[in-house]
Amino acid sequence: MDKIASLKRLLDPKKIAVIGASKSKEKVGGIVFRRLMESRRRLFPVNPKETAIEGYKVSPDIRSLPKDIDLAVITLSAEKAVEAVEMCIERGIPNYIIVAGGFGEVGAEGRDLEDRLKQLAKAHPINILGPNSLGIFLPDENIDTIFVEHGDKALDRNGRVACIVQSGSVGVEALGYASNTGYGMRAFVGLGNKCDLDEVDFLHYFSQDEKTNCLGFYLENIEKGREFLSAAKKTATQKPVVVLKAGMTHTAASAVSSHTGKLAGSDNVISGALKQFGIQRVYDDEEFCDATKVLSMLSGAPGNRVAVLTAAGGYGVMCTDFIEKKDSRAALVMAKLSEATKKRIKAATFPFTACENPVDITASATDKMFSESLDALIRDEGVDLIICIAFFAPPGISENLIDIIAEKIRNSDKPVIVFTKYGPFTDNCIKNLYYAGVAAYPSVGRAVRAARVLVERTAIQKRLLQEEKCRKN
Amino acid sequence: MDKIASLKRLLDPKKIAVIGASKSKEKVGGIVFRRLMESRRRLFPVNPKETAIEGYKVSPDIRSLPKDIDLAVITLSAEKAVEAVEMCIERGIPNYIIVAGGFGEVGAEGRDLEDRLKQLAKAHPINILGPNSLGIFLPDENIDTIFVEHGDKALDRNGRVACIVQSGSVGVEALGYASNTGYGMRAFVGLGNKCDLDEVDFLHYFSQDEKTNCLGFYLENIEKGREFLSAAKKTATQKPVVVLKAGMTHTAASAVSSHTGKLAGSDNVISGALKQFGIQRVYDDEEFCDATKVLSMLSGAPGNRVAVLTAAGGYGVMCTDFIEKKDSRAALVMAKLSEATKKRIKAATFPFTACENPVDITASATDKMFSESLDALIRDEGVDLIICIAFFAPPGISENLIDIIAEKIRNSDKPVIVFTKYGPFTDNCIKNLYYAGVAAYPSVGRAVRAARVLVERTAIQKRLLQEEKCRKN
Repeated sequence: MDKIASLKRLLDPKKIAVIGASKSKEKVGGIVFRRLMESRRRLFPVNPKETAIEGYKVSPDIRSLPKDIDLAVITLSAEKAVEAVEMCIERGIPNYIIVAGGFGEVGAEGRDLEDRLKQLAKAHPINILGPNSLGIFLPDENIDTIFVEHGDKALDRNGRVACIVQSGSVGVEALGYASNTGYGMRAFVGLGNKCDLDEVDFLHYFSQDEKTNCLGFYLENIEKGREFLSAAKKTATQKPVVVLKAGMTHTAASAVSSHTGKLAGSDNVISGALKQFGIQRVYDDEEFCDATKVLSMLSGAPGNRVAVLTAAGGYGVMCTDFIEKKDSRAALVMAKLSEATKKRIKAATFPFTACENPVDITASATDKMFSESLDALIRDEGVDLIICIAFFAPPGISENLIDIIAEKIRNSDKPVIVFTKYGPFTDNCIKNLYYAGVAAYPSVGRAVRAARVLVERTAIQKRLLQEEKCRKN
Repeated sequence: MDKIASLKRLLDPKKIAVIGASKSKEKVGGIVFRRLMESRRRLFPVNPKETAIEGYKVSPDIRSLPKDIDLAVITLSAEKAVEAVEMCIERGIPNYIIVAGGFGEVGAEGRDLEDRLKQLAKAHPINILGPNSLGIFLPDENIDTIFVEHGDKALDRNGRVACIVQSGSVGVEALGYASNTGYGMRAFVGLGNKCDLDEVDFLHYFSQDEKTNCLGFYLENIEKGREFLSAAKKTATQKPVVVLKAGMTHTAASAVSSHTGKLAGSDNVISGALKQFGIQRVYDDEEFCDATKVLSMLSGAPGNRVAVLTAAGGYGVMCTDFIEKKDSRAALVMAKLSEATKKRIKAATFPFTACENPVDITASATDKMFSESLDALIRDEGVDLIICIAFFAPPGISENLIDIIAEKIRNSDKPVIVFTKYGPFTDNCIKNLYYAGVAAYPSVGRAVRAARVLVERTAIQKRLLQEEKCRKN
């Protein structure tokens, strides 16, 4: 069986054994089991001390399990987990998620245990995710083995970002963050210590997964650098690949080493390589979520000419500052609006409207004026991308603006990014925009950064396709 | 009467006339009047069409007002507002807040009206704030004339930042933003079109105000550049001065001009000048709030050696990346911890704890371990500043951590900045930290940026005091 097919059994299993399933709602084995109860898959809890959990019959040992289990989620502590894998292999189970820490990251003794897992993975036709893995979460598949609290309510169906993260804490917090403001998650995979499965395996898998349109990695080290880069480059001709690589600096690199027990590569080398191979690098979890969000929601920008629409003059000015600021990402320029566009906007708003871009329709604007001005900008051929500054303070602006903007965006190919703030309702407003299909951000800087990421992506794809074409000729 | 004393009558008035006070709860004159009802000052509503509002007797005209009114808040539309000022001057009223827009920012006709106000201000011993002013808000004084919704609940008493903002929308949103996460506001002043009072007046005022320990300005243009800079420099020897100057770039500068009807200065010139005069420049409202928050809550950092404490290894690595990254603000370095510190931390946590800074006490950490490790870092003389990464996901960490960190900070002079994330509870957690006296931020990048702002501030003050000393000798 090829790797893709075997990973499909891991990520979309029919029969799941939970080794160490527990009655307790506090224990990891109890939490994971209850999460999986919502998966509509056949579950086989194993625990010598229990006979039934939540109405499920419990097997006393691994030998009593059926022979066609697809995945064993092992919630036992380190040493017991290794023994369980050995027994499961005898039972013919092909896939494993090992939750426990206490392996390579805690010194010599743990390293020995991890080496045993490595050898098992080498000697047998199995896949091991972890140890020290946060688990997997695929909303569309109803699969969730993540034992820590993660606010998944906003990570609704039809999400298209595959997130592959090495560190547990960063993964959980990014999940929580994303769920506050709306985020379309296709899959979340916690790599943990990578004793067997690693970023390269999941890069291959999600490159070919039809439901994924953007891949994001949080990595502290990249072991098979060459393999990862060339596979990522191939992927990047079709789907954006974003990498948050922690450990840029010398001190950070040695911190990575003590955190995961592995060496982080030299940062300059990594940075140059990522760029060359068409990978978009980000520097923290906020930027990771922001970038993957815009890349999965918008398909690109034909150029870098930005129009800004605002009812709040000051923010229009600030936004222009950010657009014209030098930045290591793609350069942006303020679009020069056509005379026809200016005329249309003035007609739709006020004779004194400042139409030079940023277009400031002032706090006297209404929903209708906003809508018609946006429409004029969408139609302007000199505009590649629009940043809408949506505020609800002006008396003529209502919350209907969300639907108005969403409808305009649905009916157009031109990318539109929204910056909005709404006091304590900001997060909720951004979430509602997300539900309506609009990529929105709560600060000028982040909205403009998202625009750069999008423009950069289009340029990367163009370059990679060009290179590919040259090679073929 | 000198300017400071006359501005005190504006900002802390005993008797306030509201010209255009309204029964309607929707009209500006109704909203402002009701806000002022909570001020415990004597109010004198004026409206020819009403006899009573909310139990207050209404004067039919300005002539019927008593002679010793300190402040007239004028909520009439542009032309009527100018006429009202003329009548109020006859009545001897010294201070005015003009809320209405429709002046210099809307073209020739409005400019004429604004010129009339300018001439009145020149010809008489009065102060005019505005027109197009958002109003003033001083929580300690119970004074609030801001007509738009602003979530002021978290802007509790004893706040020490004076915010002077030119643009209404930016001011309101910054207020809303600040109130989500806790922010100590001493005063908020909306400058509006600055026909009379401007940033220089309030710079002088709040420099001398004992309750203010940090001044923040959002400016789109600086007219009396030389005066502002030299006054700011003098202030900056004692209190930090932060400026958000929109309109850096060429296009942005022309947008400013159409937004406020005034010219923005050349940006490079402004940028260089601000630096030289000890002013800390920020680039958006988020950075404005972040910087003024840390500057008002912490008194400085003796040096730039940072220690990072975390229970989430990945974030420790990312934080190190940000600390060692090049930045136009003050450079930071990772502190080298003493052997005694490492020994103390290992004794308080685990023998395998990574103590090389970032100190990663792992997800097995407890409140007590966090507390003792923080204590060890505070005592280390090689550490100038600490960034605490506080997460609540580890089972041994409880919400008590907030109080634990706060107590350590209270009992020490060493500055501590917290980075925290807590899924949908993040904002609330940051607010609770604020109430406990701790400056906290929701992203690694922002926490490290705050650290840079603080280190930069200490260096600026040292330099300015040195210069002053040299001049005196």
